[in-house]
Amino acid sequence: MSDLKNIPVMPKSSWIDAPAGSDFPVQNIPFGIFSAEGGSAHPCTRVGDTVVDLRVLAEAGLLNGLAIEAEDFQADTLNPLMRHGKAVMRKLRQRLGELLAAENATFRDNAELRKKALFPLEKCTLHLPVEVGDYTDFYSSREHAFNVGTMFRGPENALMPNWLHLPVGYHGRASSIVVSGTPLHRPKGQMRPKPEEPPVFGASKQLDFELETGFITFQGKPLGQQITMEEAEDYIFGMVLFNDWSARDIQSWEYVPLGPFLGKNFGSSLGAWVVTLDALEPFRTAQPKPEFEPLPYLRGNGKQAFDIALVTAITTPEGNETVISRSNFKHLYWSMAQQLAHHTVNGCNIRCGDLLASGTISAPDAGGYGSMLELSWRGTKPLKMNDGSERKFIHDGDTVIMRGHCEKDGLRIGFGEVRGEILPAL
Amino acid sequence: MSDLKNIPVMPKSSWIDAPAGSDFPVQNIPFGIFSAEGGSAHPCTRVGDTVVDLRVLAEAGLLNGLAIEAEDFQADTLNPLMRHGKAVMRKLRQRLGELLAAENATFRDNAELRKKALFPLEKCTLHLPVEVGDYTDFYSSREHAFNVGTMFRGPENALMPNWLHLPVGYHGRASSIVVSGTPLHRPKGQMRPKPEEPPVFGASKQLDFELETGFITFQGKPLGQQITMEEAEDYIFGMVLFNDWSARDIQSWEYVPLGPFLGKNFGSSLGAWVVTLDALEPFRTAQPKPEFEPLPYLRGNGKQAFDIALVTAITTPEGNETVISRSNFKHLYWSMAQQLAHHTVNGCNIRCGDLLASGTISAPDAGGYGSMLELSWRGTKPLKMNDGSERKFIHDGDTVIMRGHCEKDGLRIGFGEVRGEILPAL
Repeated sequence: MSDLKNIPVMPKSSWIDAPAGSDFPVQNIPFGIFSAEGGSAHPCTRVGDTVVDLRVLAEAGLLNGLAIEAEDFQADTLNPLMRHGKAVMRKLRQRLGELLAAENATFRDNAELRKKALFPLEKCTLHLPVEVGDYTDFYSSREHAFNVGTMFRGPENALMPNWLHLPVGYHGRASSIVVSGTPLHRPKGQMRPKPEEPPVFGASKQLDFELETGFITFQGKPLGQQITMEEAEDYIFGMVLFNDWSARDIQSWEYVPLGPFLGKNFGSSLGAWVVTLDALEPFRTAQPKPEFEPLPYLRGNGKQAFDIALVTAITTPEGNETVISRSNFKHLYWSMAQQLAHHTVNGCNIRCGDLLASGTISAPDAGGYGSMLELSWRGTKPLKMNDGSERKFIHDGDTVIMRGHCEKDGLRIGFGEVRGEILPAL
Repeated sequence: MSDLKNIPVMPKSSWIDAPAGSDFPVQNIPFGIFSAEGGSAHPCTRVGDTVVDLRVLAEAGLLNGLAIEAEDFQADTLNPLMRHGKAVMRKLRQRLGELLAAENATFRDNAELRKKALFPLEKCTLHLPVEVGDYTDFYSSREHAFNVGTMFRGPENALMPNWLHLPVGYHGRASSIVVSGTPLHRPKGQMRPKPEEPPVFGASKQLDFELETGFITFQGKPLGQQITMEEAEDYIFGMVLFNDWSARDIQSWEYVPLGPFLGKNFGSSLGAWVVTLDALEPFRTAQPKPEFEPLPYLRGNGKQAFDIALVTAITTPEGNETVISRSNFKHLYWSMAQQLAHHTVNGCNIRCGDLLASGTISAPDAGGYGSMLELSWRGTKPLKMNDGSERKFIHDGDTVIMRGHCEKDGLRIGFGEVRGEILPAL
């Protein structure tokens, strides 16, 4: 699949304006699912704050010759498009770049088409971009694993013996993944706040977020076959922002010995925009140096990280936004390629639309921790909000917002945001 | 939903012969997906060893008036039928019982229809009956949890503190669920056989089965709402046999702290026949008495177990079958209703076609343990096979077969079998 190593060059500018500081210049061309004016949901991209309707472009014949069926542009998820694989999705993104390039008159000068195909973002509803088959969550930030391990077992035993040898991960719940902007109710459940007393039932008192990114896969190999480190990125469509909401009190009581369950599966928030690996290529960077040489099936070239700045903020019910954390995807100890190679080394099959999430991405410094558990150090160091209030965990009415972008040599490529409000327990 | 408590009476006999000892008399009417003679896959039931094609019956107009669309009978999974919910699936099963009843001439005396709609089982290919959205595995056998806990922590600390208070469970992998009869390759992976040395990579040396049953759900409630104990069985379509293959050496190295992952997700084998809860109703029985009164959301009437005899056998490459375990579903400490009420108490949504599996079902006596780990007590007590060989774990070329049936007052209702052969690692 070495032909997949040649990434198309994108245009320098577009006839659609992208405001300064936008995550979505024409070099990005992310993919999403939108609906507008009560219409049906179908695939789109965006430049700046303008949503571009791919169905309309396909109907106008501008996406011909890509070996993509018309109905794939009418679907309410990206899965039918993604079934065509990386080479075709790359050509589609390249074609969209050409059509949106400043110097290309075909679309630019067709007023009727512009009217039908372009929508201001504020008039659009964004939907879950993919139908997630299986969702896996990793635990690949050494800083996060160390912080949590330190709280519960002390710094000497913080990392479990396996942690530095393999990307620890577990299966999550696909049904309760919601798109950015969808509010979630505070979960109820069983917990044991006082270890010497019986467990109690109630609404979680330790509701937390986890700052994560995820990647969306193409169809993999048949059951029984592995995807190697060399092949891994060929099976990755793109990345998304992801908030793996966690109820710490439910989780800490239930998770022994089989892992997190009801402390997580009440809801997870997915960003609306899938940013392709191709768009992120200029921001490829070195991973943290491994402590041990990994086993051969996990050995890569050490350049499978991406420099993506990640910001987490809370908007309180009073409406004030407070930035509470600044982290970066490049801190992850295990790369996406390593996660995928590990996931399939036993023959486990991946399907088009699977989601593999990073685990909480904590920076080395305390200002960049990726969860309230770490930021407030188990509730011992409350965070000050701009409105004067304090937070140990998330309150009802709080909205958690995560943003991510890359920036280098004047080029900015980003993800927008993933946001979610917590409503009171039902 | 109290109207769902009235279960139709099935006919006493059918004009299709069911051999003595068959799991599939006309009182069963399970659901499955089959194809024959190179045709497409679609829904079926069976009586004895005769498969009955529901698409043909629908086309002949014999399934009219049930508010089921014709295309639902043409689908290659049961999901479109199941989307109609319990009341409609019950009417469909009742109608099938009427059409197959000994005294009903409509279908019986229509030679042309019989020729088109009936297939000998040996000429049919059985497919995965449902498209599984999310798969959850519980850990609800006290005997199994105690045995495994005893091996790893000693009998005093065998059960974790949460075990008697909630049905412990975790998310499994949906993509690698295969139908009975599908061979699986022995997984490779990372393990650490000598704790003082670094981990190694290779084919699993401790490949195991887990004797389980599962249940398939109807569409549940919207995200955020719980399903109560009283409602739980209204959301259960039926039960299946399930083999949760496990690579113990991979699992024991990877599972801390987030639970089993690659030790499980290389493949799980699902029985081809979904037996409805209605068919199992005559075999309803008392659950084991709980050690503690559970929290209110987990309190039922104590009669939510079913008396289902479960047998596990191994056929060695030489072709000898040895029965190695005799257990029963009724030993499970936590009922399916409790599992479903627990799973949704935090608002987690279930979808049509989700699979919730029991966890290994071990009987109180050593002859009824549900895994090689327990039967060979971690490899210390090899099992004798009929061909004279011994087994601590599963060898390449071994086929593991699980069977399940209920029997009472001359009525036998069963599941057939779930079988899977282990092929050498790739």
